[in-house]
Amino acid sequence: MGNCAQGMRDYFCRTKNTNIRVSLPAVCFVWQIAMIILFGVFIRYDEESDAHWIEFRKEHNISSDIENDFYFRYPSFQDVHVMIFVGFGFLMTFLKRYSFGGVGFNFMIASFGVQWALLMQGWFHSLDPATGKIYIGVESLINADFCVAGSLIAYGALLGKVSPVQLLVLTLFGVTLFAVEEYIILSLLHARDAGGSMVIHAFGGYYGLAISWVLYRPNLHLSKRLNGSVYHSDVFAMIGTLFLWMFWPSFNSAITDHGDGQHRAAINTYIALASSVLTTIAISSMSQKTGKLDMVHIQNATLAGGVAMGTAAEFMITPYGSLIVGFCCGIISTFGYLFVTPFMEKYMKIQDTCGIHNLHAVPGMLGGFIGAITAAAATESVYGVEGLRNTFDFEGEFADRTVGTQGGFQAAGTCVAIAFGVVGGAIVGIILRFPIWGDPADDNCYDDEVYWEVPEDEETIPPVLEYNNHMIHKHQDISESNFSVEQS
Amino acid sequence: MGNCAQGMRDYFCRTKNTNIRVSLPAVCFVWQIAMIILFGVFIRYDEESDAHWIEFRKEHNISSDIENDFYFRYPSFQDVHVMIFVGFGFLMTFLKRYSFGGVGFNFMIASFGVQWALLMQGWFHSLDPATGKIYIGVESLINADFCVAGSLIAYGALLGKVSPVQLLVLTLFGVTLFAVEEYIILSLLHARDAGGSMVIHAFGGYYGLAISWVLYRPNLHLSKRLNGSVYHSDVFAMIGTLFLWMFWPSFNSAITDHGDGQHRAAINTYIALASSVLTTIAISSMSQKTGKLDMVHIQNATLAGGVAMGTAAEFMITPYGSLIVGFCCGIISTFGYLFVTPFMEKYMKIQDTCGIHNLHAVPGMLGGFIGAITAAAATESVYGVEGLRNTFDFEGEFADRTVGTQGGFQAAGTCVAIAFGVVGGAIVGIILRFPIWGDPADDNCYDDEVYWEVPEDEETIPPVLEYNNHMIHKHQDISESNFSVEQS
Amino acid sequence: MGNCAQGMRDYFCRTKNTNIRVSLPAVCFVWQIAMIILFGVFIRYDEESDAHWIEFRKEHNISSDIENDFYFRYPSFQDVHVMIFVGFGFLMTFLKRYSFGGVGFNFMIASFGVQWALLMQGWFHSLDPATGKIYIGVESLINADFCVAGSLIAYGALLGKVSPVQLLVLTLFGVTLFAVEEYIILSLLHARDAGGSMVIHAFGGYYGLAISWVLYRPNLHLSKRLNGSVYHSDVFAMIGTLFLWMFWPSFNSAITDHGDGQHRAAINTYIALASSVLTTIAISSMSQKTGKLDMVHIQNATLAGGVAMGTAAEFMITPYGSLIVGFCCGIISTFGYLFVTPFMEKYMKIQDTCGIHNLHAVPGMLGGFIGAITAAAATESVYGVEGLRNTFDFEGEFADRTVGTQGGFQAAGTCVAIAFGVVGGAIVGIILRFPIWGDPADDNCYDDEVYWEVPEDEETIPPVLEYNNHMIHKHQDISESNFSVEQS
Repeated sequence: MGNCAQGMRDYFCRTKNTNIRVSLPAVCFVWQIAMIILFGVFIRYDEESDAHWIEFRKEHNISSDIENDFYFRYPSFQDVHVMIFVGFGFLMTFLKRYSFGGVGFNFMIASFGVQWALLMQGWFHSLDPATGKIYIGVESLINADFCVAGSLIAYGALLGKVSPVQLLVLTLFGVTLFAVEEYIILSLLHARDAGGSMVIHAFGGYYGLAISWVLYRPNLHLSKRLNGSVYHSDVFAMIGTLFLWMFWPSFNSAITDHGDGQHRAAINTYIALASSVLTTIAISSMSQKTGKLDMVHIQNATLAGGVAMGTAAEFMITPYGSLIVGFCCGIISTFGYLFVTPFMEKYMKIQDTCGIHNLHAVPGMLGGFIGAITAAAATESVYGVEGLRNTFDFEGEFADRTVGTQGGFQAAGTCVAIAFGVVGGAIVGIILRFPIWGDPADDNCYDDEVYWEVPEDEETIPPVLEYNNHMIHKHQDISESNFSVEQS
Repeated sequence: MGNCAQGMRDYFCRTKNTNIRVSLPAVCFVWQIAMIILFGVFIRYDEESDAHWIEFRKEHNISSDIENDFYFRYPSFQDVHVMIFVGFGFLMTFLKRYSFGGVGFNFMIASFGVQWALLMQGWFHSLDPATGKIYIGVESLINADFCVAGSLIAYGALLGKVSPVQLLVLTLFGVTLFAVEEYIILSLLHARDAGGSMVIHAFGGYYGLAISWVLYRPNLHLSKRLNGSVYHSDVFAMIGTLFLWMFWPSFNSAITDHGDGQHRAAINTYIALASSVLTTIAISSMSQKTGKLDMVHIQNATLAGGVAMGTAAEFMITPYGSLIVGFCCGIISTFGYLFVTPFMEKYMKIQDTCGIHNLHAVPGMLGGFIGAITAAAATESVYGVEGLRNTFDFEGEFADRTVGTQGGFQAAGTCVAIAFGVVGGAIVGIILRFPIWGDPADDNCYDDEVYWEVPEDEETIPPVLEYNNHMIHKHQDISESNFSVEQS
Repeated sequence: MGNCAQGMRDYFCRTKNTNIRVSLPAVCFVWQIAMIILFGVFIRYDEESDAHWIEFRKEHNISSDIENDFYFRYPSFQDVHVMIFVGFGFLMTFLKRYSFGGVGFNFMIASFGVQWALLMQGWFHSLDPATGKIYIGVESLINADFCVAGSLIAYGALLGKVSPVQLLVLTLFGVTLFAVEEYIILSLLHARDAGGSMVIHAFGGYYGLAISWVLYRPNLHLSKRLNGSVYHSDVFAMIGTLFLWMFWPSFNSAITDHGDGQHRAAINTYIALASSVLTTIAISSMSQKTGKLDMVHIQNATLAGGVAMGTAAEFMITPYGSLIVGFCCGIISTFGYLFVTPFMEKYMKIQDTCGIHNLHAVPGMLGGFIGAITAAAATESVYGVEGLRNTFDFEGEFADRTVGTQGGFQAAGTCVAIAFGVVGGAIVGIILRFPIWGDPADDNCYDDEVYWEVPEDEETIPPVLEYNNHMIHKHQDISESNFSVEQS
């Protein structure tokens, strides 16, 4: 028994080997080939992206090509796409020597994740039982981007401490769990969550925190020297912050109802975000002796209003209601960065590199409950009879649901999202502890050197002559590198 | 009397105290709470973003959701939004140690300003006298972004020399003045100014210059060492330049008439901007001994064509007319950077950090007059009878206005904008001279250290072991920082 | 004879003079003035951007302003615009000391090129024989952006080795050649190429490679020290990569058919790009001893799927077909960076700075043939009768063309594009060898110092006092610079 425990400890704590030359390509190829086969079996164009559209249009008396869903959603889709790849990616470049990993692994996760999401979400939401096919259109692309956001949020907690192979595993399970919880929340509970406060942010936040808790590194202080920013890395991170901030109205309105639904969601989100910025600045300034601002707060807590409006944005929450949500969440999120993140690291063994607890987990949870309250408070005088039915989709088997009941189901949805995040994250965390994934040692975290060819930095470029002898021309000499030597 | 003057001088020139730990949070909270109350009293969704839209649609025989104004304007809105936050923000990151302030305070100003703008513009333009409410939709959001652009331009002249509290005061008054002059120009004079050559650029430019004149710092040369760029800060600034440049067609077409109005404004602006780039490069190259280009010119003067087309873009100025406008403004603006900015600093006591005189004030003024000339030259054969009425909105009490008269009112509008900028700026400048706002001393300008927690820069990262002892982990140790100590 | 050869060699190899103070402004002014004259003679608004639109709408029974082509294409246009200016521009900032040149000359080329493209494409595609005018709308702007992409690709091969004057000449001829080959491929051969695999990428790639071959520099190793990246320049380049990657679905769908055409092209491209990322990462990781990733591959090869889908994106290639295209092209492109680029440099005298061979030339060529195969495999059951006719435009004189024939013409189009690239590039290369263009010496390449005022880099900013004496305030002292001295 003691031997067994000792054996397990040895197994899990053996010296780290970050060589991923076999595992990373193997995983990439296996999964990409699996995607091709599964896409071949399951995925087809929907009627609006199929060449038969012209016939479909005539049959359904659609007067113009402009009523193709493409024109309702494509601008929002592209904004969401920018948030996923540039927004999340650059937000994670803030570390002084992990910018490649921040933006590069984000790129990898998202590219793999959207493919798997098209399948998982398709199976759960749009599998045609008659043909056994999934029909995709622009809304499917938006949903795939949304789905992968959950895993990207989780990556935020783990930034600098995991290997790319672990990230691909995390994404595979993250997308799977997402599709299931989304199915339960949106289809079974029939909750509304257009901007994903619950299904994306609360789930993704707790998923990442739970994994981080399982992967706790007691000696992470050995990498302290690299866990911080430099001047220009903070400016890079602002690119991510601003693209997230600016396009959040598109995020929350991308898949809401055509017409007033999209319009209102964009307005509410815009207003809530503006309010978050002011209170973030206020709290950040109060926290320092001379009132200086902290870039960590400006980069993150300013976005809390958008997260918290994810559910309620499409409801008639009113413009001042949106302001209040942004006001409170800016404060809560900044306090989180000041007190909760350090507290969790010290006493709860949760190391949360980007502070996703304060930006996603808590505002997402709050957003779920704000949505529940707003739904429960809905009235026919405010929404109109048809407006109420449309907004909450009280149709079919849900035609008789009252707004009070709807509020209850919204709240229940939030709990489901958190439960999936915590339990799912704990299980995935255990899988990721196996010492086969190539993660870095405790004194080697937050360092691009581990997984990237990093150029030598020479801010002062030496004179011409003495340099030509020992500099290596990257492109030219690469053919003599290890790979080709082994090949020959 | 002498004592009094002496006393005043002492008052205004006492040692600078940049501690804003009380004033910044206080202002943020007071204003944000005021916004919540005023939004609660005044602001409601308009019929296109209200849940009653579905009933409104049927009543007004609107055939499809796609005719909601959201789908006409939302893509342009998002482009404008990017210009305000990333465009203006990154354009101001060019200083070597003021990138945080450039992009961060821009973010703060804009987020506060859009809220106040929704109210001010609402009161002046869309207050429903029957209900006493302001009804907002996507066009209101665009207008709010436009309104705040005036204050952001003014910030350009003051970059690095003012405190965030001063910037919030500048924005409060800037937005207020903007709403008034816009009301006079667009409603009373019935001038057209879709892209805001007059109401945004000429006003904002002269507003900033007038404030800068009042806040003249005779010993600013003490901060000379920081008033310049480094290599990578210039590249960051190009992000701002390019996003402004690319999306300027959306800026000038965002609130023009549906259909040909938006279409034409985008084309004209696109063409004028292309032309500006070439002449800017030509003049910049001519100004140096060996024909080298100056990044200051490329970052700024290339945009002059977009500013100058702000009024005329929606008119039938013709494609070659647009080319000529861009051609001339690229030259004028570059000459401004070469000669006028240094001249103004030396002889007129106007210190203009970003050169807004050359990019906004003068091209904006020219744009106003170009618009006046284009309007006066309009004919029914070029516009068509209905086209002329639509383009210049010759309806209601203005149904009988001739194009000549319209040209006169356009020119008058330009003068109104400049007058508001100069007079308003002088008054606001005096307010900002009170020594209570926490602005930096003359030898401490252009420095993020004053208002931001700046990370220590270590391009050469030392070896692992020796570092762990004295490095401070930002997140982890923040709980022991000054704020929490005082709390306990 | 020997004397003559010697004389020619002397002429072409005389000491380089990079002074472009006369030539650059002269070329800019001459060409910009020519543009104004030609625009004045030829270019007018089309019926959708003309003020007569309101009458046109009524005559043609167009029910709403939303059916103006502007609303179908403007969001895609802006995405394409971002790709051209930020995408291509920032992708070329990866060199440690050529970021100004990368993004700045890209800006110059594109701004000049789009003007010339509006004319050239207008003459070939939309000259109205009745009036002798070219009528432009938003689709013309997209096409102009596309056209200039060919020259920007060519710039990629020459990055750091040519003068801005050479680049303007390259663009003048590049746009001209483009318009001709596009006319042959799209109009005479009646091939489809919405995203330009053939007309943009294959042409642009081979055009650049041919020029680079003629301009071969045997002693380029003397500039080796600057032919590489630094940490932050690689992060800047990722901005370019990501904006290209994200907006490629808009690129390939921007000018396809309204409705299902745009919808399907966006979906196919999205899917192909996701697949490219995974295989690029796999091959990149395999190529290094410990599985590290190379930024060069991530920045470039991830985009190969988008290039290769340029022709087939609007066809019914199926989602899994798109995955397979991305899968293969990610592999091929990465192998190209590993082996082909160094091979070409060593044995074929082609110095290809950005590796356009692997990102544009080969994937573009493959994309042309993929399009041919997909076209040849089209059936009425997959497309529908009307869908087939619409997709391949089997109308008018081409009404009877079979899909097999169409496939043949598609393949022929690819060959035409390559031939134009190779032959045109060789000729333009010879023109660019004349020693009058101010290109840099072999030991002076990849260096912004040659054509730009570069700020002195001081990462460690010295204390206040000692600095004020010798630092030069850029704006203030510029009036004493060479230019004004000569003027006075």
